Amino acid sequence: MRSLHIIKIGGNVIDNSENLYHFLKDFTALEGDKILVHGGGKVATQLSETLGIEAKLVDGRRITDIETLRVVTMVYGGLINKNIVAQLQRFGTNAIGLTGADGNFIRTKKRPVKTIDYGFVGDIDSGSINPENISRLLDAGFTPVFCAITHDGEGQLLNTNADTIASALAVSLARLYETTLIYCFEKAGVLHDINDEDSIIRDINPERYQELKEQQIIHSGMLPKLDNAFSAIACGVKSVIIGKSDDLSRLQQKQPFGTRLSN
Amino acid sequence: MRSLHIIKIGGNVIDNSENLYHFLKDFTALEGDKILVHGGGKVATQLSETLGIEAKLVDGRRITDIETLRVVTMVYGGLINKNIVAQLQRFGTNAIGLTGADGNFIRTKKRPVKTIDYGFVGDIDSGSINPENISRLLDAGFTPVFCAITHDGEGQLLNTNADTIASALAVSLARLYETTLIYCFEKAGVLHDINDEDSIIRDINPERYQELKEQQIIHSGMLPKLDNAFSAIACGVKSVIIGKSDDLSRLQQKQPFGTRLSN
Repeated sequence: MRSLHIIKIGGNVIDNSENLYHFLKDFTALEGDKILVHGGGKVATQLSETLGIEAKLVDGRRITDIETLRVVTMVYGGLINKNIVAQLQRFGTNAIGLTGADGNFIRTKKRPVKTIDYGFVGDIDSGSINPENISRLLDAGFTPVFCAITHDGEGQLLNTNADTIASALAVSLARLYETTLIYCFEKAGVLHDINDEDSIIRDINPERYQELKEQQIIHSGMLPKLDNAFSAIACGVKSVIIGKSDDLSRLQQKQPFGTRLSN
Repeated sequence: MRSLHIIKIGGNVIDNSENLYHFLKDFTALEGDKILVHGGGKVATQLSETLGIEAKLVDGRRITDIETLRVVTMVYGGLINKNIVAQLQRFGTNAIGLTGADGNFIRTKKRPVKTIDYGFVGDIDSGSINPENISRLLDAGFTPVFCAITHDGEGQLLNTNADTIASALAVSLARLYETTLIYCFEKAGVLHDINDEDSIIRDINPERYQELKEQQIIHSGMLPKLDNAFSAIACGVKSVIIGKSDDLSRLQQKQPFGTRLSN
């Protein structure tokens, strides 16, 4: 089975042009089939402010109204995505920038209104991704670059969390590839001591995860991230790596990179 | 040799959601391999105005400064392109929305500064398009939808005229396909009498074109359009059709559609 890397970057990489430059260079050096998923960053918020669109929050949860959807379609799908693609082409990666509407790659369902109407937000379910469809693009020699926009198949674009997209792609493509899912974030990995970047825990399996939770070494913000990672592993993803974008070149050099979660 | 239709739509279709809806439905009904190329429309101008970016003109020619490039990347590459793709998916066309940076499909050269600095404008030359690359995407079952953004291969996005992109695609792909290039515009075709939409001249070959010019039936604004069309035909494009987007369904029904230019 061929291997496939699915790498997600967020605002901390996108908002810093130097970080982004180095990351995209290292991404290009990574051999084999790969997919990039990127989040938003500050530009969408800045553009919304300039346009006088107020961020709408209900019970602390962000709402995607039609104006915000227009902004994220422009910024994620246009400005950020196409600049990343142009940079990758410069380095020699034959990238194609995509939303989930393109190629019908990610079809989601508009979140139903219960207590809160989240607006134009699309939720992924088990039927959202057609792995054969994406595999045809990979086989044709292209490297997909996904932004956090999907569609409902009825002509409506929707806003979808980039972490969830990355995870769903990894699970869905695990039928055809040995998939490794990589989340790039601010820290070098899961740390024993939050103040010591050198205290990376290199490997965590489900048993060790239980111990680390019981010892309260892993807590608060990291818990949902790791819970999701182990769910993906339970669904067939070979491993999930949490690390720093600066360190990605270590992966290609077979050096320790971030924290690897696996069975 | 397989046939390929390359269809270009401009602001008159994009700015009117009803026109666009019908056009995309008819585009979907058109059998065989096809590529859509779309221009801009009013949204980019409106967004520029809202953001306080002044349209820069030198000697009546529009300049693409860095701010304007950001706007067109957002609007053409994001908002318009991805909404067209979502609509096409709804109708059953497996569309993928692209700039020339994606897949390295259209690589241009930043226009050199002579008397005027046009800014971030990319000029197409004979080496700009790799037809095999686009053919791989068509063969994988996807329908490319190009906006009027290209790249220089060095990481820089550039603004390129959509008519020129459509023509260059048709010429380049003529090596692999029997290509028909269709320009949708406001009129039903080249008219004998500009005030009579029924006076369509159905077929024009180079000899007839000379006559029509001498009789001053074709003049002013139509001349560069038709000159470019006959250049494309001289370079291997089978025929160029100029017609109204509303009438596209006639093509599928083998009924007369617009004015057909051919050798």
